[in-house]
Amino acid sequence: MSASDDLYELPVEECWELLRAQEFGRLAFTLVDELHITPINYAVDGETLLFRTAAGNKLFSVELGGEVAFEIDEIDDETEQATSVVVRGSARHLEEDEAHRADNLPLRPWLGTDKPNVVEIAPVEVTGRRFPLSRPWLRMRTD
Amino acid sequence: MSASDDLYELPVEECWELLRAQEFGRLAFTLVDELHITPINYAVDGETLLFRTAAGNKLFSVELGGEVAFEIDEIDDETEQATSVVVRGSARHLEEDEAHRADNLPLRPWLGTDKPNVVEIAPVEVTGRRFPLSRPWLRMRTD
Repeated sequence: MSASDDLYELPVEECWELLRAQEFGRLAFTLVDELHITPINYAVDGETLLFRTAAGNKLFSVELGGEVAFEIDEIDDETEQATSVVVRGSARHLEEDEAHRADNLPLRPWLGTDKPNVVEIAPVEVTGRRFPLSRPWLRMRTD
Repeated sequence: MSASDDLYELPVEECWELLRAQEFGRLAFTLVDELHITPINYAVDGETLLFRTAAGNKLFSVELGGEVAFEIDEIDDETEQATSVVVRGSARHLEEDEAHRADNLPLRPWLGTDKPNVVEIAPVEVTGRRFPLSRPWLRMRTD
């Protein structure tokens, strides 16, 4: 198998299936000149992603401009494959008259803290790939 | 338990233990004005992280300036806790006389492709937190 065969680009429909199946991902955002990354609980609403957040860095970043990148992944130890889906897009803080969109989604704060703000990520680009895990060092360690 | 008790900030030593124990994380970087995030295989070398990459976006970003954010996480379904460690820092492409630092690490490309470039992330900030997963919707679904 050639190197290029190892990397399988997922059709966008499969990316959305994976996004709908999961609930935990990582959000990258910028705050002034700083680059941040943080785990979030999210849910898919139509062709957008929603998450809840308290006032803080994430919300401040959204108010300032809101370009974000978001990633989910999963590792299948049985088939030794990893799958990763990346969403690049813009985030905006939903006004009160739209925030109810989160009410019927499987979306809860991961913390017991109050997170009254709902943020929507509108994707500009959704890409996914599946690739075999070549982990020779696992074998090396047990040799 | 109050909300603030739910979130446990990890001591930096524990962050490094987790970083040494894992090998798969997500790298956020900027490319000109674009924000990207991608899964990488990494290894700890002293108080730095190393990863291998082919020529491409990641390497180009490193050459352009190299501020990055990196995240690992794990979910313990038994205790219903999630742990996340974030490294913010700068990345640089190691010259040939330093790239050998990767040779004895459990660091291999995840793909079978040739990835001859070694990049070092020098942390500016290492933070970690552990928090309970409050996932009422899982119960909702099975009620």
